[in-house]
Amino acid sequence: MPDSDETFKPDWTTLPPPSTPAGGENPAEKNSRPNGQKNIPTEEVPSVEGTRRRLDFLQSTLQKYPAFLAGTARFSEPSTLEGNIENYIGMAQVPTGIIGPLRVIGNDAQGDFYVPLATTEGALVASYQRGAKACSLAGGVTSVCLAEGVQRSPLFKFNDLRYLMEFLAWALGQVGTFEEITRQQSRYARLESVKTNIEGNHLILTFEYHTGDAAGQNMVTLCTDAICQYILAEAPVKPEFWFIEGNYSGDKKATALSFSNVRGKKVTAEIELPQVLVSDLLKTTPEAIAQYWRSSTLGTIQSGAIGAQGHYANGLAALFIATGQDVTCVSEAAVGITRMEVTHDGNLYASVTLPNLIVGTVGGGTSLPTQRECLELLDCYGAGKAKKLAEICGATVLAGELSIAAALSAGHFTSAHQKYGRKK
Amino acid sequence: MPDSDETFKPDWTTLPPPSTPAGGENPAEKNSRPNGQKNIPTEEVPSVEGTRRRLDFLQSTLQKYPAFLAGTARFSEPSTLEGNIENYIGMAQVPTGIIGPLRVIGNDAQGDFYVPLATTEGALVASYQRGAKACSLAGGVTSVCLAEGVQRSPLFKFNDLRYLMEFLAWALGQVGTFEEITRQQSRYARLESVKTNIEGNHLILTFEYHTGDAAGQNMVTLCTDAICQYILAEAPVKPEFWFIEGNYSGDKKATALSFSNVRGKKVTAEIELPQVLVSDLLKTTPEAIAQYWRSSTLGTIQSGAIGAQGHYANGLAALFIATGQDVTCVSEAAVGITRMEVTHDGNLYASVTLPNLIVGTVGGGTSLPTQRECLELLDCYGAGKAKKLAEICGATVLAGELSIAAALSAGHFTSAHQKYGRKK
Amino acid sequence: MPDSDETFKPDWTTLPPPSTPAGGENPAEKNSRPNGQKNIPTEEVPSVEGTRRRLDFLQSTLQKYPAFLAGTARFSEPSTLEGNIENYIGMAQVPTGIIGPLRVIGNDAQGDFYVPLATTEGALVASYQRGAKACSLAGGVTSVCLAEGVQRSPLFKFNDLRYLMEFLAWALGQVGTFEEITRQQSRYARLESVKTNIEGNHLILTFEYHTGDAAGQNMVTLCTDAICQYILAEAPVKPEFWFIEGNYSGDKKATALSFSNVRGKKVTAEIELPQVLVSDLLKTTPEAIAQYWRSSTLGTIQSGAIGAQGHYANGLAALFIATGQDVTCVSEAAVGITRMEVTHDGNLYASVTLPNLIVGTVGGGTSLPTQRECLELLDCYGAGKAKKLAEICGATVLAGELSIAAALSAGHFTSAHQKYGRKK
Amino acid sequence: MPDSDETFKPDWTTLPPPSTPAGGENPAEKNSRPNGQKNIPTEEVPSVEGTRRRLDFLQSTLQKYPAFLAGTARFSEPSTLEGNIENYIGMAQVPTGIIGPLRVIGNDAQGDFYVPLATTEGALVASYQRGAKACSLAGGVTSVCLAEGVQRSPLFKFNDLRYLMEFLAWALGQVGTFEEITRQQSRYARLESVKTNIEGNHLILTFEYHTGDAAGQNMVTLCTDAICQYILAEAPVKPEFWFIEGNYSGDKKATALSFSNVRGKKVTAEIELPQVLVSDLLKTTPEAIAQYWRSSTLGTIQSGAIGAQGHYANGLAALFIATGQDVTCVSEAAVGITRMEVTHDGNLYASVTLPNLIVGTVGGGTSLPTQRECLELLDCYGAGKAKKLAEICGATVLAGELSIAAALSAGHFTSAHQKYGRKK
Repeated sequence: MPDSDETFKPDWTTLPPPSTPAGGENPAEKNSRPNGQKNIPTEEVPSVEGTRRRLDFLQSTLQKYPAFLAGTARFSEPSTLEGNIENYIGMAQVPTGIIGPLRVIGNDAQGDFYVPLATTEGALVASYQRGAKACSLAGGVTSVCLAEGVQRSPLFKFNDLRYLMEFLAWALGQVGTFEEITRQQSRYARLESVKTNIEGNHLILTFEYHTGDAAGQNMVTLCTDAICQYILAEAPVKPEFWFIEGNYSGDKKATALSFSNVRGKKVTAEIELPQVLVSDLLKTTPEAIAQYWRSSTLGTIQSGAIGAQGHYANGLAALFIATGQDVTCVSEAAVGITRMEVTHDGNLYASVTLPNLIVGTVGGGTSLPTQRECLELLDCYGAGKAKKLAEICGATVLAGELSIAAALSAGHFTSAHQKYGRKK
Repeated sequence: MPDSDETFKPDWTTLPPPSTPAGGENPAEKNSRPNGQKNIPTEEVPSVEGTRRRLDFLQSTLQKYPAFLAGTARFSEPSTLEGNIENYIGMAQVPTGIIGPLRVIGNDAQGDFYVPLATTEGALVASYQRGAKACSLAGGVTSVCLAEGVQRSPLFKFNDLRYLMEFLAWALGQVGTFEEITRQQSRYARLESVKTNIEGNHLILTFEYHTGDAAGQNMVTLCTDAICQYILAEAPVKPEFWFIEGNYSGDKKATALSFSNVRGKKVTAEIELPQVLVSDLLKTTPEAIAQYWRSSTLGTIQSGAIGAQGHYANGLAALFIATGQDVTCVSEAAVGITRMEVTHDGNLYASVTLPNLIVGTVGGGTSLPTQRECLELLDCYGAGKAKKLAEICGATVLAGELSIAAALSAGHFTSAHQKYGRKK
Repeated sequence: MPDSDETFKPDWTTLPPPSTPAGGENPAEKNSRPNGQKNIPTEEVPSVEGTRRRLDFLQSTLQKYPAFLAGTARFSEPSTLEGNIENYIGMAQVPTGIIGPLRVIGNDAQGDFYVPLATTEGALVASYQRGAKACSLAGGVTSVCLAEGVQRSPLFKFNDLRYLMEFLAWALGQVGTFEEITRQQSRYARLESVKTNIEGNHLILTFEYHTGDAAGQNMVTLCTDAICQYILAEAPVKPEFWFIEGNYSGDKKATALSFSNVRGKKVTAEIELPQVLVSDLLKTTPEAIAQYWRSSTLGTIQSGAIGAQGHYANGLAALFIATGQDVTCVSEAAVGITRMEVTHDGNLYASVTLPNLIVGTVGGGTSLPTQRECLELLDCYGAGKAKKLAEICGATVLAGELSIAAALSAGHFTSAHQKYGRKK
Repeated sequence: MPDSDETFKPDWTTLPPPSTPAGGENPAEKNSRPNGQKNIPTEEVPSVEGTRRRLDFLQSTLQKYPAFLAGTARFSEPSTLEGNIENYIGMAQVPTGIIGPLRVIGNDAQGDFYVPLATTEGALVASYQRGAKACSLAGGVTSVCLAEGVQRSPLFKFNDLRYLMEFLAWALGQVGTFEEITRQQSRYARLESVKTNIEGNHLILTFEYHTGDAAGQNMVTLCTDAICQYILAEAPVKPEFWFIEGNYSGDKKATALSFSNVRGKKVTAEIELPQVLVSDLLKTTPEAIAQYWRSSTLGTIQSGAIGAQGHYANGLAALFIATGQDVTCVSEAAVGITRMEVTHDGNLYASVTLPNLIVGTVGGGTSLPTQRECLELLDCYGAGKAKKLAEICGATVLAGELSIAAALSAGHFTSAHQKYGRKK
């Protein structure tokens, strides 16, 4: 039950004790790897016992027990959903699995993570688990949040180009005021830049903000609206009309702007997998994966995709649902570039780059019951955690790309889906 | 509780009786419109009472009560999740609202629908509700499933172009056999076409299937794999290597192939909104919406998006989560084209076109507890319903496009998000 | 004959006198419009007499006679082609027509221009002539060069991301030195910005330059190479390898970067055509053109084009061949956005936006015999003229867009091609 | 001088005799390679003597002397330009160089070709010459025309979707009549397919034709117009309006449709270069080129390009100007995919794929004086030669891709441009 002070805060103090098998051996410990990594107890077909083992593992390893997720706590106060939903009728329930350890070496994310993934698609969790295992055994994924920013792009239409130019000259002199307005609107938002885009008598002004640890789409809307109200009141030349968003910012859609910009967080993650790990664990070779990457990258290009990647959307959608992100943003976040190459030493180098990771650890759905629990499992709930979450996303995505490329290069893709992906 | 014969079948016979206010008046009836449409009791801030009113409305109007969604039935058998999840730890819970009535005039979907939307983003449900109301008052959305097909695109690499051509000549003579192999693999799959794509010594063969009422990605993988095994065994010229998917089919990603192909279902939906409805309900004018559309379409083009639309992903992600679709496919399904124009009579014509609607009403997550309930609310559960679901998706998306365009053209976008989208 | 001091300088002093018809009437004068615009004597089927009339017109109106173009001067010194061609065997001859007057109201281009277009495709010149006439009668095209810049994007690959970050931190501290190196390399080049793009262990540094009045691709290569040599010598961390161009700058190809950047010059041009002019001259209506624009813009989007325009490439290729531009750059320059709308007053507003106009008035092919003559006809030869040429390009392209949209909206497209485009 | 029967036919019988050096040795022969390939006498800085040597070489090797190109024949009959130009004022002259031999192993093109390239950009011809030499020494480029087709895409707009569907049902039953209309319109055109594209109440019908040896854009316009006139007269449901082209066919623009379609000719060309040739002639290694290809392909993807290639536009624009093709079509023809890989044996595999080669050997500019001469040099003038020309284009483009990749991978790109690309 949520306590009264902080909505939905999982009550770690009232957890059930971890179940210990006869003989006192914690099964998780059996799976410890030489490097101290503790393996989640895996299971293909969910069972009550297996589920309990994994929950116990999380309790013993992380000292956290996701009671709402596990069904031992029940949600009962719809009013706490204010700002998340209208016309509420209940809770859709999405099966959630967990992978790990996923070792991440980032600026903000460092250590072994157990990543919750909510999905209805068989094989997904098993595939990411396999990739995570390979990455962790190789020493971990280097994952770095390179840049941050969220945009709003109001569009102003003028009688003609001359008016537009006069208006623009004035507006570009007001950036200091725009920054001040931003500060007045939000404690968290910081106006980072104003870019211009002219097309005939259309002017798009793109305001880019740093949004703290929130995903930030609402924040940037409110700030930009306040700026626009000032503009409309003060500008010496008025537009014929204007819109708060000219559909240029990339909100809720894949765009080719991705690679020259950032939207949300830009993360790149990389790893070098030793040849022996590729053959023993992934059942293929660095050469075969590199060949698959080259060939399939050209397939992607021919399909007219933006970027070139395998299935970022799988891991991101599952992680976003679990952790209360705006799942819609998968449409933009799933754009990126995967690379896989053989190194001089015959190992496999792999990287992923995600320029549009719209994620937050405050606001939105992050404080809902199961969502908060999942963020807590990653130690990513609340202020100061958004870049950490982004780096974990990057590492997770890389694990998934490796696993699918291995399966496809080895001819195991179909059998994995036969094994995991069919209702019996 | 799920009964033993059919997993998770909502037990309509054990529903609680609808609550009837003193005086015997059903509150839903109060909201009946002249054309017989019954309004869902709307509510911005979720309350226990309001939630109950909506569940009662569904019971009285549709004779259906989503017990798992409402929390009166509880999921307790993880083993039934086989094929949906691995390493299961529990159920992520996503707040679900409902909109309606949404009147649809389709080939397969006809009548007034109440559409469940699972999201954590405030304002989303309210916005779609407003669009649905406008559409229904205008007589309903014409929504048509135009085409169906799901692809797998194996890639074969040869020593050189000569071998490729020899192989291809043989393969193109085997289409009858490929069809036969497909029939042997699946009762539902039907091979529709085989297309070729040559790039140097790379050959991509794109197999397109009709997949019945399943989303079909696994089905097409299994059939294509069987075909490829035959090819590898029998072809007079062997490839150096091959992959079951050359990353050309558009699986899990937005691609520019969308508009010359279908992936899943292709749906187009349209409506003509009378001028008075636009002004009274949407608080703007057809001219302002048309102006917004023209300007923002150019913004979209400049962003390098694929297609041109507003926020398809919002409605689709919410509907996909609620109904057990593969949410990942929002990355491809959210590609489309919206159009808004003033008619000769001064009304508003609006249409949406979605070429990549990957949806199913059997398999995948469709039979999970809350997912099945949500499909049942739409009368879209099980065989024979996939095109109907696709047409409802199209109509829902159109409702959302109208609502956001109205808000943006009228300058209400920000205030809506201030009202609905902020945690208090 | 070229004189010895300045290669290929057309010898205006030795021009033949303009031919004057019997009675002393200059036929061009007959075509003078009330606003002082002088019409070029048009002709569908080239004749010796008509050709002479046009050359006379240029002589009398501009005091310029393109002797090499007209065939009265002959090229005879191959050595002057150094830097333009290797393995020279002769001169390809491309038929050149002229349109005008095209009235331009720009920052750098102001007045009535007669624009030479070299093409082998019938109907092209006639179509642009019609558009130019409409624009000029409407008072002229507002055409503005909004931005300038040419990029080189060297790519550096590192052992891993850590090395890359260390290298980058150093490099970003060297921008002052990079500017100094640029000054040493070229009198004309000015380093404007350095942007970074990280993808795994790949780093692209995009150096953007102002290149004076040269198209500038060679200039930016030389400067960037010098900067890279400095980097390689001085950087505390060396890349594994590097390339002077990572194929990111958009050189010789259409890219979606276009609309967030400039490449060469960014020009936007607009006009408002009175309704009566649209009906009398273009034989259609503003509404029909606006309808065509809306419908065809959606066709373009569905084709997966970059930007949305009609046939920029026609006018640009013809103008580039005539004036010694790098015709190859049509592949990038022909990307843009056309807009056509009905104004409140029932007139037609039309605009074009070209973000990638790679043009120059010094260097490259600009000083070759006929090329220089064509630049001289536009008063665009030599230093200080590149922005002027860009604005003329913008106005020409707008004229062409109007003409084709008018033809297509009126159903005259086919008949125009039947009339002009078939060898008899 | 053109004779009277066939316009501009070069008069081979009146050629000047080849100049033979003292001693009777033909300098070309000196350059014969063991495999019988005869090297064009190359020259960086054009000279009268060098030019003569190359013309003599063409005369002795091909028995052809391009008199108009060389300036020994002069064009003097403007009336023969009917259908190519309006408002004619003279001939733009573009320096033309020649490369070769380029050995091609195609279906239609077989043997050693000397390819004329018209350009004003220094280094271009030298670069393609180097690539051609490498390819020819390796045994020649395999270049195959895989498919042919040119499209027109009329757009019909209806009152609503219902009318559209009724119209479409009728139209799809008329394909036999459409084929008959096509036959009546043109001896050469053959209607190959009719594809449909629905977006709301918009219908695009894409008519794809085989156009014989003409580039065919006019031909398909005329045929489609005739079909549309029939449709408008006979259809039981009339569109509100229609346009002969909905801007969907890809005419004059780069589109992502390219890789699922053909536009003009689709050609793929490949070669395997022995390691020793890469090191001796191209001064780099297969590994370095493959590395460059991988890295730069990702640069291209990030730039939002369509396809992934280096500089197809350079070779194509130069060849199109020389041979009277519609140079404008470089905007679409320059879209393609280049691949470069190290083979098992340590050699370099390279391929190019061009899906949009709009080329013809009859009609358009092909019969103009220098254009015809250049086609004759390739034995590509007139009926039955278009596929041959397309295969030569593919091989030329591959030569250019190899040369630039070699230069970039070896760090010679800048020095080549310093050497060749600067006016002295």
